[in-house]
Amino acid sequence: MATRRPAPAQPDWLCLERVVRFGDTDAAGVMHFHQALRWCHEAWENSLERYGIEASSVFPGCRDQKNAPTIALPVVHCEADFSRPVFGGDQLQVLIAPERLNPGSFEVRTRFQLEGVDVARGLIRHVAINPSTRQRCALPEAIDRWLEASCLGQISSL
Amino acid sequence: MATRRPAPAQPDWLCLERVVRFGDTDAAGVMHFHQALRWCHEAWENSLERYGIEASSVFPGCRDQKNAPTIALPVVHCEADFSRPVFGGDQLQVLIAPERLNPGSFEVRTRFQLEGVDVARGLIRHVAINPSTRQRCALPEAIDRWLEASCLGQISSL
Amino acid sequence: MATRRPAPAQPDWLCLERVVRFGDTDAAGVMHFHQALRWCHEAWENSLERYGIEASSVFPGCRDQKNAPTIALPVVHCEADFSRPVFGGDQLQVLIAPERLNPGSFEVRTRFQLEGVDVARGLIRHVAINPSTRQRCALPEAIDRWLEASCLGQISSL
Amino acid sequence: MATRRPAPAQPDWLCLERVVRFGDTDAAGVMHFHQALRWCHEAWENSLERYGIEASSVFPGCRDQKNAPTIALPVVHCEADFSRPVFGGDQLQVLIAPERLNPGSFEVRTRFQLEGVDVARGLIRHVAINPSTRQRCALPEAIDRWLEASCLGQISSL
Repeated sequence: MATRRPAPAQPDWLCLERVVRFGDTDAAGVMHFHQALRWCHEAWENSLERYGIEASSVFPGCRDQKNAPTIALPVVHCEADFSRPVFGGDQLQVLIAPERLNPGSFEVRTRFQLEGVDVARGLIRHVAINPSTRQRCALPEAIDRWLEASCLGQISSL
Repeated sequence: MATRRPAPAQPDWLCLERVVRFGDTDAAGVMHFHQALRWCHEAWENSLERYGIEASSVFPGCRDQKNAPTIALPVVHCEADFSRPVFGGDQLQVLIAPERLNPGSFEVRTRFQLEGVDVARGLIRHVAINPSTRQRCALPEAIDRWLEASCLGQISSL
Repeated sequence: MATRRPAPAQPDWLCLERVVRFGDTDAAGVMHFHQALRWCHEAWENSLERYGIEASSVFPGCRDQKNAPTIALPVVHCEADFSRPVFGGDQLQVLIAPERLNPGSFEVRTRFQLEGVDVARGLIRHVAINPSTRQRCALPEAIDRWLEASCLGQISSL
Repeated sequence: MATRRPAPAQPDWLCLERVVRFGDTDAAGVMHFHQALRWCHEAWENSLERYGIEASSVFPGCRDQKNAPTIALPVVHCEADFSRPVFGGDQLQVLIAPERLNPGSFEVRTRFQLEGVDVARGLIRHVAINPSTRQRCALPEAIDRWLEASCLGQISSL
């Protein structure tokens, strides 16, 4: 007998929402493609925040930050795929799946869904560097914790 | 005897929130000024949504919209003032005060606060037009209702 | 006898151009309003560049910049007026008129024209501050020179 | 004997320029990653324009456009790689290499260089659709001509 699948037990820091705004559209009447990359980065920031990591421990340019973080996380690659048109007013689910690639790098895959159906996907890959020398280094501890917890979160939701 | 003023009883569609994201900053380490105008427009959209007005009844480019709305609401004027620096990660309160100017025009004043202190203000003025002829016309009914309710909301919070 | 008015003799650092791009539009089929503020700031940067002022002497975040400039120029006020719709593909003339307001502040008025007809206007007001203390200070010398030359340029074009 | 390689004989509609603006940076002091995707799309628009194709024959939302084009070209995939930091004020060369993938699809690869050295690369893939039915169709004739000419341009520059 067919039963309705229960909603996945993903932790809330991996299941976000986003409403598409009028300014995200273009004259073709749908979301302008590069907004999706902005949404991916903001979803990542939102996820860190919900997990309990303060912006000031990861990003430069935060309030009362005596020094910028000693590790920067520049984007080295990003991509996005668009499978269905996304319209202004759409209330999207934003599912993110982070993955550590090596001790100094991770990526975040983001799926945008409308009522459970994928409309777009994105991916952002970061590396850890020393912002002064721009040499590669290990990921910040806070990011490591979030990556580990996210990974468990994804498993526990199977 | 000095007493603590109670929090204002503003309806929730006039009291919004916004977290400043990393991509909103520039190399001076603070919010890049024109983001505030984007925030003002998005706050207006958010307010309509919370009040119960569907995006598709006001904006073109929405899902399942057989026809675009018969009235467009272009911006004819906008402005913003910046009184204190705004940083990435700041969790802002966004207070909006709409006002009908005449039967075919309204404006929305937006105050951005951090812990009750103003950091920036914005204003967007719209006129109603027929999108085909671009002639001025009366505001859409839904906007009229929201303006009226917002006005009462502001009074009741005194 | 009617004669054709000669083109104004404005120096080229006050007469710029801008082509409206597809991503500048929204689902109403015209330029999305807040892009105009971005254009105003970029026109100012372009003007400085054409006049011969290096970005690194004014803005932080430039290449081979051992230290950020000792004076920052945050925006304290901006505004824009929209008189006619602006469409994707429009090839706009961008006329800028800078003005010193006092020793520590200036504003730049920008007119966007299509074939000599105003379609939008913008204004950005900056103050000079010490970026560490955020105390007001005098404008950088380079900006002072550009303001003076621009002022002469505007007079000579009468 | 070492000789200086002559500048490539690329047609000018494939060799563009772009100056990085202050608003393109973030608080890490370098270009914010998703701006690169915007630049890729704008470089494509610029290329069409230089080749002699009017925006109104390709994009909706143009002036004096009685009807929107009968073929839309949504982005189905985009990506970017960042190999070196890009700073405000950088004067980038923008080299674009378009390729037809099949009768109804093409992609544009974009290389951003500073003094001949790659700093970032981008790619945008478009498909042709009927904007009403959203069914796939053949590319517009103007795009076909530009793709063919660009292809010859790339060969002639070897």
